[in-house]
Amino acid sequence: MNAKSESDGRGMGKNRIEALTDGIFAVAMTLLVLDIKPPVHLRFETSEALISHLLTLEHSFAMYAISFLVLAMFWLCHHLQFHFVRHVDRPLLWINLAFLLLAVVVPFSTNLVGDHGHLQFPVVLYAANLLALSLLLFLQLRHLAASPHLTAPHLTREAVTHLHRQLILFGIVPVVSIAASYYSPRLGMYLYVLLVVPAFVPGRIDRLTRPETDGGEPAP
Amino acid sequence: MNAKSESDGRGMGKNRIEALTDGIFAVAMTLLVLDIKPPVHLRFETSEALISHLLTLEHSFAMYAISFLVLAMFWLCHHLQFHFVRHVDRPLLWINLAFLLLAVVVPFSTNLVGDHGHLQFPVVLYAANLLALSLLLFLQLRHLAASPHLTAPHLTREAVTHLHRQLILFGIVPVVSIAASYYSPRLGMYLYVLLVVPAFVPGRIDRLTRPETDGGEPAP
Amino acid sequence: MNAKSESDGRGMGKNRIEALTDGIFAVAMTLLVLDIKPPVHLRFETSEALISHLLTLEHSFAMYAISFLVLAMFWLCHHLQFHFVRHVDRPLLWINLAFLLLAVVVPFSTNLVGDHGHLQFPVVLYAANLLALSLLLFLQLRHLAASPHLTAPHLTREAVTHLHRQLILFGIVPVVSIAASYYSPRLGMYLYVLLVVPAFVPGRIDRLTRPETDGGEPAP
Amino acid sequence: MNAKSESDGRGMGKNRIEALTDGIFAVAMTLLVLDIKPPVHLRFETSEALISHLLTLEHSFAMYAISFLVLAMFWLCHHLQFHFVRHVDRPLLWINLAFLLLAVVVPFSTNLVGDHGHLQFPVVLYAANLLALSLLLFLQLRHLAASPHLTAPHLTREAVTHLHRQLILFGIVPVVSIAASYYSPRLGMYLYVLLVVPAFVPGRIDRLTRPETDGGEPAP
Repeated sequence: MNAKSESDGRGMGKNRIEALTDGIFAVAMTLLVLDIKPPVHLRFETSEALISHLLTLEHSFAMYAISFLVLAMFWLCHHLQFHFVRHVDRPLLWINLAFLLLAVVVPFSTNLVGDHGHLQFPVVLYAANLLALSLLLFLQLRHLAASPHLTAPHLTREAVTHLHRQLILFGIVPVVSIAASYYSPRLGMYLYVLLVVPAFVPGRIDRLTRPETDGGEPAP
Repeated sequence: MNAKSESDGRGMGKNRIEALTDGIFAVAMTLLVLDIKPPVHLRFETSEALISHLLTLEHSFAMYAISFLVLAMFWLCHHLQFHFVRHVDRPLLWINLAFLLLAVVVPFSTNLVGDHGHLQFPVVLYAANLLALSLLLFLQLRHLAASPHLTAPHLTREAVTHLHRQLILFGIVPVVSIAASYYSPRLGMYLYVLLVVPAFVPGRIDRLTRPETDGGEPAP
Repeated sequence: MNAKSESDGRGMGKNRIEALTDGIFAVAMTLLVLDIKPPVHLRFETSEALISHLLTLEHSFAMYAISFLVLAMFWLCHHLQFHFVRHVDRPLLWINLAFLLLAVVVPFSTNLVGDHGHLQFPVVLYAANLLALSLLLFLQLRHLAASPHLTAPHLTREAVTHLHRQLILFGIVPVVSIAASYYSPRLGMYLYVLLVVPAFVPGRIDRLTRPETDGGEPAP
Repeated sequence: MNAKSESDGRGMGKNRIEALTDGIFAVAMTLLVLDIKPPVHLRFETSEALISHLLTLEHSFAMYAISFLVLAMFWLCHHLQFHFVRHVDRPLLWINLAFLLLAVVVPFSTNLVGDHGHLQFPVVLYAANLLALSLLLFLQLRHLAASPHLTAPHLTREAVTHLHRQLILFGIVPVVSIAASYYSPRLGMYLYVLLVVPAFVPGRIDRLTRPETDGGEPAP
């Protein structure tokens, strides 16, 4: 009865908050590539001239790919936490709106880094933007862990611990990036690849997120 | 049977109207940040020069954040009302299309305020835009209250009263903002933060929106 | 069994085609307003100067509102037809992709009309764009009427006749608009309001689209 | 029980990955048309002058239509594969994120081809972009074929073979396009129409994708 009413969208809007989140991330991730300005007004006589021009955009392309993956990681992390949500209360709603507000700023921050690759400040601003997003995910997790009436029963202590562990990296990498940017702004940005790498390592979270489907099937 | 057929998308399109609404709000809320033009064509030699330039965009950033939250509040208010909708008739459909038509104009209004912070007229236009949105939400609520065949049984008088009370603020703040804009256009805009503050106060509406899940669970 | 598997997204993608359609219409309807260029680079000393400038954009605003409502009407008409779809075959898929391809061009056509209000050709192009959309909806309806294995049982002859009648207006108004544009391009555009007006008239289609919910409830 | 919990969004996010994919494709397919710059700043005295200007945009329009259909084909192919997915594991997730990362680049590649129709390099870049997308769909199919615990039971060997056959064309056409571009860049692009043509041919895949609905209904 409970599960059914959720899929109907009852209880305050988990489904529609997810829809708004997915929509905003889809638009933001697509807009990232608009920041790479193709040479529209320039006319190139030869393919070589065009290629050499495109190579000057190499930094913008790298920043696009990094930001796309970073946004994807945050979307995924948000998604894993929301997987356990059954009801949305006001604090949870506001954490989510603040999260979206700051996620939408990421294309702007990326743009600044892409256009001013030689300066350190855009890298710091970018890191601050991501740190704020990490903090909100951390607050959300704490709120969920403390509010059993909002969550599914399979949000066990073990699951919370794992979600916490995952967030640590989201807090550390931006700080390391700021430190590295004093040495080289570009290195600071490339460090975000670290955020992606561990995601390839299979973890226990895969099992934790689907207890029903594992347990719901009687052994044949 | 009834509940199931709704979740299938039968009855005239509550699900798809919600999908269109979520999509349009997601795009509009993301486009808001495009109005903040980063200094693309300018090259800054030092981080300090870039920072001082970004500080001149402070007004645009503030307007972005305010408009994002204002749109989020309207999305939320629409969402709370639609929570009670079971069937969509023609008047409800047209109220929704007009609501979306005017919601899409908000980035334009925001842009005007952001670019002409010293003038009063953009603040009045912005307020008029929001007042029209509030009026449509008010019309929608009246239509729902008068059409029990369109709504879920738990849209009680108490719930209607609470939704009404919520809308009062959506009508008052823009009017106060216009009045304040005679004194200072900027103050007029900052007043919209008032729209957000009470949303942090937990209200009875939280309970009203999920009677099924509360009542559907037998006490252990 | 059958109904359940549809809501799971089985059968070839009615749900996801609807999601793509809703997404594309949401983006296209939001992008329309981007065509109204606010006076960004101009600085106005007084509100009066800004107002008189905005009044010169009056034609663009009117075109925005008309195109928004026209797109909404086409979305709605598509939605009413898809309401009866149970399975999607290849012809239906391709009709839908062509429909989306041409729907995305509407902001471009609108832009042309908005910027060249004194010329007749943009009005003709706009009408041609809408006529092509109407034709595709007509082809879709014919395909559905001839393919009972794709549709729900309540797509009766009566429902088909009503959907056909609705489409007649979508075919006539653009033709009348072209004729009127010889007299005045602007008049040609304002005629599209005709497309919207009859939508306010309640019709039998409201009943036809929800037989299950009407019939599924036993009389108390 | 299993089927129900999936439609609730449990198991790692097939529903939300689909939502993100649909959102990103909807935005990317709509942004394609933004690449066709209407003659905003030019004022045309006569419809003839405007028409002759629009005819110079003919190449851009053709590239828009081709890219729209190409993206639609990839979306469809992804959709057909995901139809069989029941659970998402990490490799599948990363294949999807890389797929989206490269799909978002398609409007950029299209833009390059549209603006530099006389050069060969953009055609090669475009082909490389599509080849990478095809490769990812191929990797996804291989992963699904080797991971029965992730897929629905009706992903039979026969279905895999058919999905493979479909992908061959997605690999061959870009290669042929590169070869043809040495002769004529424009011809290279028009060859992508080949990708669309066979999609009109009804295949056994139509039956393969809906075994439940075919088999689930007892003969009357």
